[in-house]
Amino acid sequence: MLRIAVLGCGRIGRMHAANVAAHPRAKLVSVYDTHRPFAEDVAARNGITAADSADVIFAAADIDAVLVATATDTHADYIERAVAAGKPVLCEKPIDLSLARVNVCAEKIKGASVAVQLGFNRRFDPGHRAAHDAARAGEIGDLHQVIITSRDPGMPSRAYYEAAGGLFRDMTIHDFDLARFMLGEEPEEVFAIGGRMIDPGMMRELDDFDTAMVILRTASGKQCHINNSRTAIYGHDQRVELLGTTGMVISGNRKAHQLRRYSATVTETAAPYLNFFIERYREAYDAEISSFVDCVEKGSAPEVSFEDGRKALVLAEAAMKSVAEGRSVNVGEIG
Amino acid sequence: MLRIAVLGCGRIGRMHAANVAAHPRAKLVSVYDTHRPFAEDVAARNGITAADSADVIFAAADIDAVLVATATDTHADYIERAVAAGKPVLCEKPIDLSLARVNVCAEKIKGASVAVQLGFNRRFDPGHRAAHDAARAGEIGDLHQVIITSRDPGMPSRAYYEAAGGLFRDMTIHDFDLARFMLGEEPEEVFAIGGRMIDPGMMRELDDFDTAMVILRTASGKQCHINNSRTAIYGHDQRVELLGTTGMVISGNRKAHQLRRYSATVTETAAPYLNFFIERYREAYDAEISSFVDCVEKGSAPEVSFEDGRKALVLAEAAMKSVAEGRSVNVGEIG
Amino acid sequence: MLRIAVLGCGRIGRMHAANVAAHPRAKLVSVYDTHRPFAEDVAARNGITAADSADVIFAAADIDAVLVATATDTHADYIERAVAAGKPVLCEKPIDLSLARVNVCAEKIKGASVAVQLGFNRRFDPGHRAAHDAARAGEIGDLHQVIITSRDPGMPSRAYYEAAGGLFRDMTIHDFDLARFMLGEEPEEVFAIGGRMIDPGMMRELDDFDTAMVILRTASGKQCHINNSRTAIYGHDQRVELLGTTGMVISGNRKAHQLRRYSATVTETAAPYLNFFIERYREAYDAEISSFVDCVEKGSAPEVSFEDGRKALVLAEAAMKSVAEGRSVNVGEIG
Amino acid sequence: MLRIAVLGCGRIGRMHAANVAAHPRAKLVSVYDTHRPFAEDVAARNGITAADSADVIFAAADIDAVLVATATDTHADYIERAVAAGKPVLCEKPIDLSLARVNVCAEKIKGASVAVQLGFNRRFDPGHRAAHDAARAGEIGDLHQVIITSRDPGMPSRAYYEAAGGLFRDMTIHDFDLARFMLGEEPEEVFAIGGRMIDPGMMRELDDFDTAMVILRTASGKQCHINNSRTAIYGHDQRVELLGTTGMVISGNRKAHQLRRYSATVTETAAPYLNFFIERYREAYDAEISSFVDCVEKGSAPEVSFEDGRKALVLAEAAMKSVAEGRSVNVGEIG
Repeated sequence: MLRIAVLGCGRIGRMHAANVAAHPRAKLVSVYDTHRPFAEDVAARNGITAADSADVIFAAADIDAVLVATATDTHADYIERAVAAGKPVLCEKPIDLSLARVNVCAEKIKGASVAVQLGFNRRFDPGHRAAHDAARAGEIGDLHQVIITSRDPGMPSRAYYEAAGGLFRDMTIHDFDLARFMLGEEPEEVFAIGGRMIDPGMMRELDDFDTAMVILRTASGKQCHINNSRTAIYGHDQRVELLGTTGMVISGNRKAHQLRRYSATVTETAAPYLNFFIERYREAYDAEISSFVDCVEKGSAPEVSFEDGRKALVLAEAAMKSVAEGRSVNVGEIG
Repeated sequence: MLRIAVLGCGRIGRMHAANVAAHPRAKLVSVYDTHRPFAEDVAARNGITAADSADVIFAAADIDAVLVATATDTHADYIERAVAAGKPVLCEKPIDLSLARVNVCAEKIKGASVAVQLGFNRRFDPGHRAAHDAARAGEIGDLHQVIITSRDPGMPSRAYYEAAGGLFRDMTIHDFDLARFMLGEEPEEVFAIGGRMIDPGMMRELDDFDTAMVILRTASGKQCHINNSRTAIYGHDQRVELLGTTGMVISGNRKAHQLRRYSATVTETAAPYLNFFIERYREAYDAEISSFVDCVEKGSAPEVSFEDGRKALVLAEAAMKSVAEGRSVNVGEIG
Repeated sequence: MLRIAVLGCGRIGRMHAANVAAHPRAKLVSVYDTHRPFAEDVAARNGITAADSADVIFAAADIDAVLVATATDTHADYIERAVAAGKPVLCEKPIDLSLARVNVCAEKIKGASVAVQLGFNRRFDPGHRAAHDAARAGEIGDLHQVIITSRDPGMPSRAYYEAAGGLFRDMTIHDFDLARFMLGEEPEEVFAIGGRMIDPGMMRELDDFDTAMVILRTASGKQCHINNSRTAIYGHDQRVELLGTTGMVISGNRKAHQLRRYSATVTETAAPYLNFFIERYREAYDAEISSFVDCVEKGSAPEVSFEDGRKALVLAEAAMKSVAEGRSVNVGEIG
Repeated sequence: MLRIAVLGCGRIGRMHAANVAAHPRAKLVSVYDTHRPFAEDVAARNGITAADSADVIFAAADIDAVLVATATDTHADYIERAVAAGKPVLCEKPIDLSLARVNVCAEKIKGASVAVQLGFNRRFDPGHRAAHDAARAGEIGDLHQVIITSRDPGMPSRAYYEAAGGLFRDMTIHDFDLARFMLGEEPEEVFAIGGRMIDPGMMRELDDFDTAMVILRTASGKQCHINNSRTAIYGHDQRVELLGTTGMVISGNRKAHQLRRYSATVTETAAPYLNFFIERYREAYDAEISSFVDCVEKGSAPEVSFEDGRKALVLAEAAMKSVAEGRSVNVGEIG
């Protein structure tokens, strides 16, 4: 049993804490949040006590690993402290909104002997993983095109937007990582457009976008399209399509159950898609923790590395530059 | 080009006439109906003239074959006359409502040198045929169960009911034929229940049923279920499922197009099913005529024989006896 | 937190123990099995100790309720003892293979003040439940037909067969309960056929069946078809279809993920169906425990009662009589 | 009955001739091809005689309209001659590979009193049309994103490539038209990448592409993605997805029948997609002719105009410029 402490007890931290507690090979042993009542609430639900500080957690001999789900601007610090404390760390994305800060962190943890795993949970979705594995196993021949549809079910709050670092670093970053995972090689060129269609006023004020399309191209010519929207009224829409020379695979959405309805006007009507990431990616979050436990126990490299986190951020910055300049941006111009 | 005359210009006769006219290997050369304006209307649409009598058609040297789509109680007569005239005949189902009359007809046409094909169109539906072929090709191993769902989209008129001979001889007869086609061996036992659920008053007056369930068993033990309803509000529901030891196949329904709709409350909503047999089985009717042309041209046996028509009627009578007596009826008790 | 002891630590008992342990409103506090190592294994996995006897459990003041997953021939005894001890009980199906024994048990527990819930888990499957709720809410108008497809993925062992009481009391009993749940009224007539198609030799030796079809009819005329097979090579096939005057609903199967595959010969190929009841009905088992906790906490009637267990058994006996006599059996002839 | 002559009797001309001949409101009265045996073959199949020259057709008083399916470089000439002869014309896409030539043609036919309809058949596909109509009817609220997947089942011949004018003017031009049709407003910016993945050698020699991705943006901000491949091994893949504020619709592919297969390793396996445009768009080609007959009979504007043909070509040229310059191209830079 890997004894894990969770830092950050907001929405996603609470979810991680519950997943760790329920995991057959992990044990939730401590939680911390700068807002103490959050930590105490999570601790109470799990029959443990909240830590007084992050320091206590990093110093504890009976804590094997940490899961970081705090505010984005603390991620790099906590990664550095975890590495310094010799504790493996599973950290939520993104590493930081500043690529410079990420590069400093990379330098500091270079050669670390403990695992640093980034929280790109979508790689662990059973359908997405099966798509990836089919491609790697040669089932679709040579991969030519990847199409990623990634739409949130509803607009986040203004407060969320203000801290999120913009659509590309907050939302598309997941898709950039998924694109790299599926393509199996590095994107070299990025073209992107951003739209202000859902809440143009707020988007203009925040200099942000609520709708986007991206095209990526790798050195060998593989093509990838990503489309994003902050509001898909029919649920959390998360699809991945891989076209190869001998086949195609599509990983689709999940529904709460398999009922189909038929009436005078419609047929085969299914239930709504699972509404947001906690439901949609429930199995993926479980598998992510399993993967983290595996790499710690076996001393193997994490399936999603710090460098994966850095490269996704480079693609986000390239996309932002492309939007600003209306041209294809070479990844080499960024990172 | 096979020169075909169509006898009977009601709803289904008109459809057959149009199909013959459009068929690349057949030519519509004459039509006849006891109600002359019907025949004239069909003739005019096809640039031919209506025949004054059926006699004229049977006597004509430049008519190669006849398609009989007249009232049920004339089918046996026309089959006998066609055979006597040496003209291959494609006759709509059922041969007759009376098994005795069918047996007399069978005796009369015994040893006929011209093809007598029965109009069990469903055998020619591309999906149903693919199911049959998969089973015959061994794709699902040994066949164990057949499930036939057969529901009409709406109640016919009282006049139709009065002439139709009851649910089992009018509607289920198609499914009895399909069951035999799919099972690949003869049903030996029949159990059936009939319900009066849609229009109990009219059904009682006519001593008929609007809803039914049937179970068939062959000598080797294969099982078949049929369910019927006169009203499936979502369209003409025609499904066939074959369960074998190494696989299953399901032939499903057809829609006008492949649009799927998604909203706040539903996902993957499809268009209504094609509404009735003329649309649902359009391709099947075409293939039926092709098959008829083939057997005439090649002198081969028709894919659906007179005996197939007789055996389906025997099953219908067995079902009626089962309903009356509340027990499993052996087919040998009937005919 | 409802403190629950699990009696019986075989395959299904282990599953229940794990589900109770993981349930947010239940706590696994004790386990017992006549084969002590089974109980100790389950206890160890859950950090508790195995009970020395069932007596200890029934006597314990700090055990609120029991879940019975022992051999079938002990169910009625344990139900009686739980009621005598004032402990609510969730008991696996069937109550007993002997209707006489069930009736004795019914007499003994008459007027019990504690909940006795039967383990018909399928009522809690999200899709099946949504189908039921749609029908009850009037979404499909008047219900006319119910079609239940229920096929196991593979043959059980001979030892299992010898103790199971035959196909109708072991396997179809689930479908009889589901039929009653969906129909919303009592079946009055039962017709059934049993087949020996998968392992004819063993089936003959055991006087049992591996394949079956059933037709039920209620007093108001509603019709229900059930088909069973012990081996569906494509997975655990569990479908329910409800046809009404204004609509139809179909509850379908579950897959491990939503990948679709396309190649030169196939399109839209999905993953295999979840292979057996533990995976297929995982959510249902969770909901079943939630329902049990609810009825204990609120003092309300269980959603699935002892009488539901008795009535399903009556239908199984009627089916067996129908098979033996080749006729429709009135339920009144049995119970 | 509209009396139509077909110019051009290659693959697509033969198909059009057959469709006109079978159309209930049109009559095939003449055919012409520079390669006379092609015209004679089509004439023979339809019981007419081939015309000696196009002149004869344009001069004939008993020919009401012409359908042009000749080589691309003759389209503009034939349109001009049809207009001069006062004969409505349905012309295959593209008008010409040279935008300058198209503009000259536009000038010449300005103010023509006869209908000039362009052969963008995909607008008439029942599923695509239903998607368009749903969007126009407000069913999905404000349209934000359009995703067009358009992949041919196999590489054309080198000879075809040499005459086709490149991927964007030959293949994507259909999608540019469909994008305009679906968006309901003009794209203003075009970004495109072209790939040489299927036959890099031939593509380099011909300075052409076999794989492409495009992003379009309209003045109001609507976004559209197109992906193209010359080889989708699973069939002719033609999908359109429209995302709006209150819903989404997806128009999918067509299969020959509705059989689904289940085995030990797969479930729900469907038949291959219809393999190429003649099968995939059969209904669309029929509806296209109906639309042409309608506009001629009613004197209304054609549903797909000459200007639609010109604008699709402008988008193709913008895409080519974008590929060459690696930047977003404003449509105003082209036309």
